[in-house]
Amino acid sequence: MKIYDRAGFPNPSRIRIVLAEKGVESQIEFVSVDLIAAEHKQSAFLLKNVSGVVPILELDDGTFLAECTAITEYLDNLDGNPTLTGRTPLEKGLIHMMQKRADNMLIDNIGIFFHHGTPGLGSALEAHKSPEWAHRKEWGLRHRELAIEGLRYFDDVLATRPYVAGGTFSMADITVFAALLFAGAAGIEIPDGCAALKAWHARVSELPSVKNRSGQNLEAEDLRRLGF
Amino acid sequence: MKIYDRAGFPNPSRIRIVLAEKGVESQIEFVSVDLIAAEHKQSAFLLKNVSGVVPILELDDGTFLAECTAITEYLDNLDGNPTLTGRTPLEKGLIHMMQKRADNMLIDNIGIFFHHGTPGLGSALEAHKSPEWAHRKEWGLRHRELAIEGLRYFDDVLATRPYVAGGTFSMADITVFAALLFAGAAGIEIPDGCAALKAWHARVSELPSVKNRSGQNLEAEDLRRLGF
Repeated sequence: MKIYDRAGFPNPSRIRIVLAEKGVESQIEFVSVDLIAAEHKQSAFLLKNVSGVVPILELDDGTFLAECTAITEYLDNLDGNPTLTGRTPLEKGLIHMMQKRADNMLIDNIGIFFHHGTPGLGSALEAHKSPEWAHRKEWGLRHRELAIEGLRYFDDVLATRPYVAGGTFSMADITVFAALLFAGAAGIEIPDGCAALKAWHARVSELPSVKNRSGQNLEAEDLRRLGF
Repeated sequence: MKIYDRAGFPNPSRIRIVLAEKGVESQIEFVSVDLIAAEHKQSAFLLKNVSGVVPILELDDGTFLAECTAITEYLDNLDGNPTLTGRTPLEKGLIHMMQKRADNMLIDNIGIFFHHGTPGLGSALEAHKSPEWAHRKEWGLRHRELAIEGLRYFDDVLATRPYVAGGTFSMADITVFAALLFAGAAGIEIPDGCAALKAWHARVSELPSVKNRSGQNLEAEDLRRLGF
């Protein structure tokens, strides 16, 4: 199997954590996609994923799977023991509910803020964003506020249970972890007072599958191009 | 189990089709939520679903499940035979990929157009939408174009296979069907030339689980309030 992604970016990190959790990293050939040069918006990549986002998984028969939830469902069910997406109907329901909330409240809002309210990944990629939209920055800043509201929601959740969807680490935790990685890159910190979210983040960051999958894992070339 | 929803609306239709497909409609008590009066944005409803959207499923122990993908995963796995969300890892992956594309390309874009580029559901609900955003209409109209691009994408897909995610009817078909229901309400027609999408729509509309779940199923009171 091949994964097309880029080390250290938020959505690629989601699937790299899944691969580590499932113990299948050694079966994967990684193909690096130059996100800062907007390689994922060019026709060669769009033939693999019409949505123009990473990561994607290519199976040995040439089938492409895109979207983190879909790739996670595939990889998590390969061994017949879906620890990350739920074993019972209720686990599946709760994990997918919290996964969708993490996408809607965090990843989507942080993404709009990052790409429209900040310089984002620079000129190559941002040239692909609706240039007719003159009011991008105001719109972007509103989504920063919505992302912070989302962080407060997940703090409330994590004050009542050890993991995002219940008693065990799941796909929903991975999405919130990646969202915090993305938030950090966009200059959004966990708000003061969100003690449960901070404690969860510290705890999850130490998991063997998660450790060393932070933004510090960006390639040296990308760190330089992004001005770090 | 209870479902909080409103007959004839797009996302409620998704779960009503799931209930019919799984043969569990008779186990459900339906609780009607007055969407036109924005009941789903009031505190009593937000305590059930913080995201303020229908439908939601309440289990007999008082647990609430929100988000159509999550409710579908729960209901589809109750009998141990997940016909709508996939039985193999590859089926699960493909269904979740196409489901997410239907949400992103169709439901989300049509929703933004409907609520910002048209009068939407009227003053009670629209008062809850970012009032500081003065440029809503331009933004809404852009998303009408994106929705139409999405319809062309699904036409391309359905020219190559009988159902959205492959050889059998799945959650992804239900989402595209609901999106077409929503598109019709928003005044977006299937573009000329999309013969495969039109043929699929005619075929799916005749399935026993789908028949009579169109917008004509809106309550008489809602049809009058919406000006039909």
